[in-house]
Amino acid sequence: MSAASFLRRLLGRTRPDIGQRTQHLASLCDALLGERGEVSGAALAREALAAWKALDERGRQEFFGILATEFAPSPEAVGKAADAYRYEPTPSNLIALQGVLDTARQELFRRLNMAAGGTEALVAMRRGLLKGLKAHPEWAAIDADLLHLFRSWFNRGFLRLERIDWRTPAIVLEKLIEYEAVHAVQGWRDLRRRLAADRRCFAFFHPQLRDEPLIFIEVALTRGMSAQVQPLLDVAAPLGEPGRADHAIFYSITNCQEGLRGTSFGNLLIKQVAEDLQRELPHLRGFATLSPIPGFRRWLAAPDTRVQLSVGPNAERRHALLAKIEEAGWHTGEIDEPLQKLLMRLCAWYLLHAKDGAEPLDAVSRFHLGNGAALERLNWLGDTSAAGMERSAGMMVNYIYRLAEVERNHERFFSEHAVVASRAVHKLARKSPLAAPETAARNQTEA
Amino acid sequence: MSAASFLRRLLGRTRPDIGQRTQHLASLCDALLGERGEVSGAALAREALAAWKALDERGRQEFFGILATEFAPSPEAVGKAADAYRYEPTPSNLIALQGVLDTARQELFRRLNMAAGGTEALVAMRRGLLKGLKAHPEWAAIDADLLHLFRSWFNRGFLRLERIDWRTPAIVLEKLIEYEAVHAVQGWRDLRRRLAADRRCFAFFHPQLRDEPLIFIEVALTRGMSAQVQPLLDVAAPLGEPGRADHAIFYSITNCQEGLRGTSFGNLLIKQVAEDLQRELPHLRGFATLSPIPGFRRWLAAPDTRVQLSVGPNAERRHALLAKIEEAGWHTGEIDEPLQKLLMRLCAWYLLHAKDGAEPLDAVSRFHLGNGAALERLNWLGDTSAAGMERSAGMMVNYIYRLAEVERNHERFFSEHAVVASRAVHKLARKSPLAAPETAARNQTEA
Amino acid sequence: MSAASFLRRLLGRTRPDIGQRTQHLASLCDALLGERGEVSGAALAREALAAWKALDERGRQEFFGILATEFAPSPEAVGKAADAYRYEPTPSNLIALQGVLDTARQELFRRLNMAAGGTEALVAMRRGLLKGLKAHPEWAAIDADLLHLFRSWFNRGFLRLERIDWRTPAIVLEKLIEYEAVHAVQGWRDLRRRLAADRRCFAFFHPQLRDEPLIFIEVALTRGMSAQVQPLLDVAAPLGEPGRADHAIFYSITNCQEGLRGTSFGNLLIKQVAEDLQRELPHLRGFATLSPIPGFRRWLAAPDTRVQLSVGPNAERRHALLAKIEEAGWHTGEIDEPLQKLLMRLCAWYLLHAKDGAEPLDAVSRFHLGNGAALERLNWLGDTSAAGMERSAGMMVNYIYRLAEVERNHERFFSEHAVVASRAVHKLARKSPLAAPETAARNQTEA
Amino acid sequence: MSAASFLRRLLGRTRPDIGQRTQHLASLCDALLGERGEVSGAALAREALAAWKALDERGRQEFFGILATEFAPSPEAVGKAADAYRYEPTPSNLIALQGVLDTARQELFRRLNMAAGGTEALVAMRRGLLKGLKAHPEWAAIDADLLHLFRSWFNRGFLRLERIDWRTPAIVLEKLIEYEAVHAVQGWRDLRRRLAADRRCFAFFHPQLRDEPLIFIEVALTRGMSAQVQPLLDVAAPLGEPGRADHAIFYSITNCQEGLRGTSFGNLLIKQVAEDLQRELPHLRGFATLSPIPGFRRWLAAPDTRVQLSVGPNAERRHALLAKIEEAGWHTGEIDEPLQKLLMRLCAWYLLHAKDGAEPLDAVSRFHLGNGAALERLNWLGDTSAAGMERSAGMMVNYIYRLAEVERNHERFFSEHAVVASRAVHKLARKSPLAAPETAARNQTEA
Repeated sequence: MSAASFLRRLLGRTRPDIGQRTQHLASLCDALLGERGEVSGAALAREALAAWKALDERGRQEFFGILATEFAPSPEAVGKAADAYRYEPTPSNLIALQGVLDTARQELFRRLNMAAGGTEALVAMRRGLLKGLKAHPEWAAIDADLLHLFRSWFNRGFLRLERIDWRTPAIVLEKLIEYEAVHAVQGWRDLRRRLAADRRCFAFFHPQLRDEPLIFIEVALTRGMSAQVQPLLDVAAPLGEPGRADHAIFYSITNCQEGLRGTSFGNLLIKQVAEDLQRELPHLRGFATLSPIPGFRRWLAAPDTRVQLSVGPNAERRHALLAKIEEAGWHTGEIDEPLQKLLMRLCAWYLLHAKDGAEPLDAVSRFHLGNGAALERLNWLGDTSAAGMERSAGMMVNYIYRLAEVERNHERFFSEHAVVASRAVHKLARKSPLAAPETAARNQTEA
Repeated sequence: MSAASFLRRLLGRTRPDIGQRTQHLASLCDALLGERGEVSGAALAREALAAWKALDERGRQEFFGILATEFAPSPEAVGKAADAYRYEPTPSNLIALQGVLDTARQELFRRLNMAAGGTEALVAMRRGLLKGLKAHPEWAAIDADLLHLFRSWFNRGFLRLERIDWRTPAIVLEKLIEYEAVHAVQGWRDLRRRLAADRRCFAFFHPQLRDEPLIFIEVALTRGMSAQVQPLLDVAAPLGEPGRADHAIFYSITNCQEGLRGTSFGNLLIKQVAEDLQRELPHLRGFATLSPIPGFRRWLAAPDTRVQLSVGPNAERRHALLAKIEEAGWHTGEIDEPLQKLLMRLCAWYLLHAKDGAEPLDAVSRFHLGNGAALERLNWLGDTSAAGMERSAGMMVNYIYRLAEVERNHERFFSEHAVVASRAVHKLARKSPLAAPETAARNQTEA
Repeated sequence: MSAASFLRRLLGRTRPDIGQRTQHLASLCDALLGERGEVSGAALAREALAAWKALDERGRQEFFGILATEFAPSPEAVGKAADAYRYEPTPSNLIALQGVLDTARQELFRRLNMAAGGTEALVAMRRGLLKGLKAHPEWAAIDADLLHLFRSWFNRGFLRLERIDWRTPAIVLEKLIEYEAVHAVQGWRDLRRRLAADRRCFAFFHPQLRDEPLIFIEVALTRGMSAQVQPLLDVAAPLGEPGRADHAIFYSITNCQEGLRGTSFGNLLIKQVAEDLQRELPHLRGFATLSPIPGFRRWLAAPDTRVQLSVGPNAERRHALLAKIEEAGWHTGEIDEPLQKLLMRLCAWYLLHAKDGAEPLDAVSRFHLGNGAALERLNWLGDTSAAGMERSAGMMVNYIYRLAEVERNHERFFSEHAVVASRAVHKLARKSPLAAPETAARNQTEA
Repeated sequence: MSAASFLRRLLGRTRPDIGQRTQHLASLCDALLGERGEVSGAALAREALAAWKALDERGRQEFFGILATEFAPSPEAVGKAADAYRYEPTPSNLIALQGVLDTARQELFRRLNMAAGGTEALVAMRRGLLKGLKAHPEWAAIDADLLHLFRSWFNRGFLRLERIDWRTPAIVLEKLIEYEAVHAVQGWRDLRRRLAADRRCFAFFHPQLRDEPLIFIEVALTRGMSAQVQPLLDVAAPLGEPGRADHAIFYSITNCQEGLRGTSFGNLLIKQVAEDLQRELPHLRGFATLSPIPGFRRWLAAPDTRVQLSVGPNAERRHALLAKIEEAGWHTGEIDEPLQKLLMRLCAWYLLHAKDGAEPLDAVSRFHLGNGAALERLNWLGDTSAAGMERSAGMMVNYIYRLAEVERNHERFFSEHAVVASRAVHKLARKSPLAAPETAARNQTEA
């Protein structure tokens, strides 16, 4: 194995500025990649991972430095192999080139994975790596190698979709409390309500990470399409009858493993859960999210938007209205109808037309539209929590998943950048002060 | 994703000489790699695999042809990316180059794997591919891509070691009967004996192939180191008491999945099993194989060997002796002591000195010595089955695994090509007619 | 505990004619019932069961003798407690009486059950007991105590219905081969066919006997109601598609545990399996057995039947016809239509009118009619195996389970002794030479 | 079946004063015992249990009334059968008598148990019954029937000992929080600490009650024999290393199912857990409880004790000292040595000599001594919680389980009423003001 022969040269190498513990880990990695690794792989991998875990922050940075420099393929070897393929593009030249580029680093990670707990440790290692990536752009190739492996290891075919309920081990439930990123869980009583008979929770698991959900989704079975999230989160809410529900509302979806960033499971999860629920509860006739609009107020406050809003008729009136939402508790008393109208129209405009390149500026919108959902309804005061008011002046949105249309929507989203939205949302946007007549016409795509 | 954009150009492409079913499969693969694949991956993958399974031999060859030609990375793109890295070996240039070489083919296989049964189908696909590889060297890059993925997917960390016994599902036991490659299983009664209380059987499984052992090993718990295999295979042999055994004899190890060729588990399995048995049965004091010598008579009959044997003193006498083993049933009557001596000395010489390059010519020997075992003892008439007589004139060999020495042996095997063997085997070899005094001295390494 | 105080008197007692090993077991039982048993129950129970297993036949008989005599409740104590209850039927007097009758023997069995494998050992003990019961009527009270416990322990609520298929552990499948009592299994290949996709097999298990089916049933999914059993048993029969079947044919049901005689599960099993199959395969529209008629020829040959057949017109002709079926292979050539007619009419008459008391003489008929099935159809040459010819001149019968009617049929069977049968079967019986006009009228109940 | 024929007479019977719903349940029970029950047992049982659950308190009392009166065996039938056995004590007369006494009620319960959830419902039914038993002594025979069945159903042989830890389903853990009867669990964080690496928790489960522990025990692995319980309960206590512990301290044991009262598992659980722990952690050299002394202060305040303490020398001084412990917080400041001495001596005397009949007055003491433990050490301020101060002036006691001695201790406890205690405890008791010289001598049994 070339990895081994390459590494052999490194053995015994001294790295003067490197701490002793890091040095020790490096030589364990050398051994793991060498012949001892072929015979005693699991034992060496265990030892190396223990050494890695024992490193402090500085040691870890040193180790990433070694991984970044000593394990990169030689530019000359790469160039020679690439030239051979360029001039004679045969399978064997291709394989040779791939061999040069299947780095010793990748082989190292594969061997570390042989230890019990190896996968978990590598996912955690990448989490640490990602944190420092901005400060250490030279680590990018390490990240690429890990991501390449994770894409294989965490292939959908290897994941198990599991229902989470009150019979799930506490060690897993505890992680839901810890990870939930959309609507924080207020302890075990809150969690218990979210797992009651009129709720569903599903997660993807990997066989090697048996107590670690990769991603999970929370669903409420409701009559009608929910417009407000507080009733769904109310611990004391009366129990609904799943048999009488006609909607499944996806009100929270959380990626749990920062170390797996880039291996997305969200779209697969939603699609699978919708199909499974339809089978279990055939009377369900709608699958929709109740989603935050994380970027609305940020966009509203941005200089560009401010400038656009300051021109045209009624600019001053608008300014005065929008000033109100800066006041704490503005939404608790009676609300000006004009303010409500203005905010909803601006928000509709934001969702339909505010872009980052060709794609929607709003991250949640980008995710669901990219999955083939349609923007169905804007909900006034859908989330009156502090976070909800802060992010989107309390508004929420329903994205609807129509199983028969998601494929087509997804394709149109990626080929034409089409934002599929309901007539009502389009109408709101057209009435927005930002709407130029032709804009509305050009982009309109009614669901 | 570059794979998708690359593939988009292929969509709608007509392939004139290709059958319609293959054409259909190819367009399903295009779709799977395209945007539909991102939304409906599992469904498309299922459809594509069904289409693949429905192809006849000719269709499969056509499909491999498409995979080989249309999915290869462009030599120019490769060349450019490699040049960039050569002149500026930055992480981003390395990542870009790896991206060009992470072929659409690999992505296709990853996506096919999303279907239920995907892994199994891909392993079977590679089995078919390997069969035709000699006739179609242009398929080698497909094979390399599959092997690259399998090395990740079948990482030791993902395998489960399981004991096979009479409580194992019949669907798995049936496969042991089918696959056993060393000493064929004569039906369920034979199998039952091999799984009785004084035997052990272990296999590696992968979570995705729940009824398919990847590799399995059969062990007999015995008093003393077994010298003959027939008593171990005797269905009517009286049951031994595991608590009184002092040796674990590995008498059969079988790789089950031709489609996983190149992802070796054998050494890991033996090591792990030995450690587990030592823990379960602390009174065991020896772990050894009882192994065939598959290449001895082939080597003996080879022209080169014949020539060497035909010189020196007693050549005619030798010739006459060796002629006897061509007679059917020569071993059932009384055997000439000189014949026995001659055969054992030649066989010892063969095991110690017959090479293929620097490594032992005998495949089984290569495997166990490479794992760090030592050549312990040669057994006269150890296997008197037709196959045993045919392969090695009935001789068998014990390779011994001393847990404390396997690492060192393995390293010496790969660095110095040292064949670690017992004094007794060396002595036999030295008395061989082929032994030149200096040869014996040079290679001697006594265990 | 009274059991303990009662037993204390037995301690140290010498039993002169009893073998030493039995004596030892008896004192272990004494200890188990005494105070040591309260602290070290599981350990003592294990020891006692080992001692029991080590007894030879004579020792076991001695032990049963001890159980029968020394463990019976004292007649005086019983009489006194019963008198108290007779004169003052209060709860406390009832409880006191029950206490006297809850024998030390029952307590002994309950404590033996604490050992691992205890339940299995007690079931086996009763099997032995039942074998000797005829010769030792004094053992009947032991049997009654065991049966009383088994009725509690093997309550339907504790049984698990499990599907048996090719994924079932070999240790269980092996028992199916061993136990099958209706149509013997010809080895593993035969069994495999019986577990293929167009077949079903279900069994009841008890949590304590994990590898021991209590009862199992074999089902064929067919188009139409099967009339012949040989095609169902044919190992080479082409695989049917379960999705296209419209009938589930119960062609074999076997009680596995002789030691559980008297705790019947058969009716529960059939009912449950029919319901489960209907749910899994909603297109099934008929559930029927294909059953042997074990007592027909025995009844036909009985002196009484002979006498009845020898009167009336055509008696001699009948005699001549019936003589034919004594010849070996009579059914393989062309068969006299008159003989076929005569046999079918007599068999219908037998099934409808031959009684043992008020219940059907035929045991299989009694079982299925008692479960609420209806006698649907008589099948000529339904089972041409040696056993089939021997038992019923090759005829078989379909009992049909109509889920909506089984309750009513069952009640009528037990209250009015009504044999619910189809018009066709009644018609056959009416034409039987044994039919008196009024008999036919009186008993007729058409399904 | 006689139960059925007996019941048939009840069918259609009108019960004038009984509510309609109870009437309905009664007729369902009739049907369940009758022929319909033989065919459709599980369905009828389900219906009957649902009807039972829907009854209010009054309805349940009516139903118990029916069970008590209509289902009792007839005194005449019992008398006749008993006479037959008295005059001719044959097995068949015994069996007949047992048949008369195996009440229809028992059969009813056995059939109710066929429904899913039946066992759980019957255990709950008995819990309700026990609550009203004092007010309704006529229900005692119902209770006896249920207890008789439960003794069979919950035989140790059917129970599974399971370790409870953080991987246990939340639905079970929640019940631990709810049931814990010795040291209340303060929410999930407290529970998590009690299940950490230096703690153990085990419970018995029955296969039919999969989410319901029957009894559980909490264990701390410590260095030395713990004398104080507060450190064990401290959520913030640092994690100990199980590998360095030398004692297993059983600090809490809770029976969970009031409805199973009378089927004791406690001694079995402790013995089994001690054995299992010894196997897992061979370096453990002591198994002891840290137990409350629930009756000490009640006994101390009892008139009899008061009288005895008021005589002899120093009575006034004693009185003054003992008055102090009535003051709140007396133990938080500095404590008079004489008071501590007095309390400890009195408590030792209480544990050794205060009796209820021949057995220890203290319930916890009775339990552990009855299991074969020895009274090892009295701990001053072992439990300073409000409950601990209230029950025993803060003292706790260690009972020690020496595996080799529990059998002998248990026997001596039951035969000689011996309280096995350490020299130190005896010494304390001898110095108690209540000790008469001869008392101390007579009862002394040093461990």
